[in-house]
Amino acid sequence: MSLPVSNNEIRFIKSLERKKSRDEHGMFVVEGAKLVDEALHSRFEVVRHYRSEDIGTDTMERMSLLASPSPALAVLRKPEGLEIKDLAFFSIPRNGLFLALDGIRDPGNLGTILRIADWYGIDSVFASPDTVDVFNPKVVQATMGAIFRVDFHYCDIVRLCRFFSLSGGNAYGTFLDGESIYSKELNLGKDNCSLIVIGNEANGISKEVAANVTDRLFIPPFPEDERGSESLNAAVATAITVAEFRRRALTHPTDR
Amino acid sequence: MSLPVSNNEIRFIKSLERKKSRDEHGMFVVEGAKLVDEALHSRFEVVRHYRSEDIGTDTMERMSLLASPSPALAVLRKPEGLEIKDLAFFSIPRNGLFLALDGIRDPGNLGTILRIADWYGIDSVFASPDTVDVFNPKVVQATMGAIFRVDFHYCDIVRLCRFFSLSGGNAYGTFLDGESIYSKELNLGKDNCSLIVIGNEANGISKEVAANVTDRLFIPPFPEDERGSESLNAAVATAITVAEFRRRALTHPTDR
Repeated sequence: MSLPVSNNEIRFIKSLERKKSRDEHGMFVVEGAKLVDEALHSRFEVVRHYRSEDIGTDTMERMSLLASPSPALAVLRKPEGLEIKDLAFFSIPRNGLFLALDGIRDPGNLGTILRIADWYGIDSVFASPDTVDVFNPKVVQATMGAIFRVDFHYCDIVRLCRFFSLSGGNAYGTFLDGESIYSKELNLGKDNCSLIVIGNEANGISKEVAANVTDRLFIPPFPEDERGSESLNAAVATAITVAEFRRRALTHPTDR
Repeated sequence: MSLPVSNNEIRFIKSLERKKSRDEHGMFVVEGAKLVDEALHSRFEVVRHYRSEDIGTDTMERMSLLASPSPALAVLRKPEGLEIKDLAFFSIPRNGLFLALDGIRDPGNLGTILRIADWYGIDSVFASPDTVDVFNPKVVQATMGAIFRVDFHYCDIVRLCRFFSLSGGNAYGTFLDGESIYSKELNLGKDNCSLIVIGNEANGISKEVAANVTDRLFIPPFPEDERGSESLNAAVATAITVAEFRRRALTHPTDR
């Protein structure tokens, strides 16, 4: 026998596909047996969770936000402190490597970037208010669980860059006219904090943010003077840049 | 006045969303002003192309395969030699860097990988028959035009790996128990051909292919002994691995 789930409950879960409803109720949805299991062991509060073996696959299909429903779904409470209004009260450590997303719009890209941040031990990921909502179901799925482990905040990226440079740290950005990531000296975040800014998929880093970046980087194509594509995907550029910071830290552990 | 487009024509274009129809007619669709312009200047045959200023936006909306139709659409003929049945007759050069995709299923990933191949001057990309169709509209859009420049073929990846190792080249794959890409000596494809195999999103490289890889690589997380996520996205792993081959070629041009 299946446990009953009310139509109101199903309607409520379905409504969490929309940002407006997620903001209003302060909740979001996670789907998939593995993700739900990770959610239950995470710092996030699981408000309610369902398994198709308990509620029946028909009911699961009705409440799922996915094209192909999975056997588990959970409703989670959004964490506190997601938006940082006053950076002065946010204590950025004196060292560490951070990411700032300036207008990432594609849910798959944001999810993939959080997965990269998780793999490479990024201390926090900051995003501009016009970045896609991190609790959008497509973002949550694409993180493959990284959303439960990576520290994430929305804030003003212009002010964040200033905050880093005023603290004596660096705010890096990638530009087509920047300096090769392979020849430039990089602040690896060991003695001072270091920020890598990633721009919007179509327009790159915004003018206002670019004016506050301290160092302009460039990912060299191959051969160096023959670029085929005009640019790399935003998540791919993030991966290559972060990997280079971590490669140096791993292969030259005494470098500063 | 708008130029008339018959309902049959619209139905035909719409049908090209399906692989079966693309295979039957040997054609595929490209959308977006920039992509259509690149198609017209590419080695691909443009069978017909439409602009919404000529046919009207209503008609464009009816024929478009995109959720948000763009002002230009073109029907292209699929190139010859897409599938390689007999590798012996395919002449792989004695040097160069190549990619092999072992079951990439996500259209966005395949498109992004072609964009990476374009940026990094990869000589050819090979894909197993169970890889998503490269002329799927979502793949075409995600390539951002790289599809017009990158040499792409479907073939048996097990036989391809053997072909590379028998030619005295290397067939690399990334595995969780491989050797760090930063400490391993790499055949950069200068004196001999080198192949990088990328596995399926969920299951990695298949057993049969893994048995024919000559060198097992690993992308180290950071810190090296504290992996957060279980893996990286397939396109991200491709980017980091290819970037490392090209970084060495760029920064140590005399290395072999």
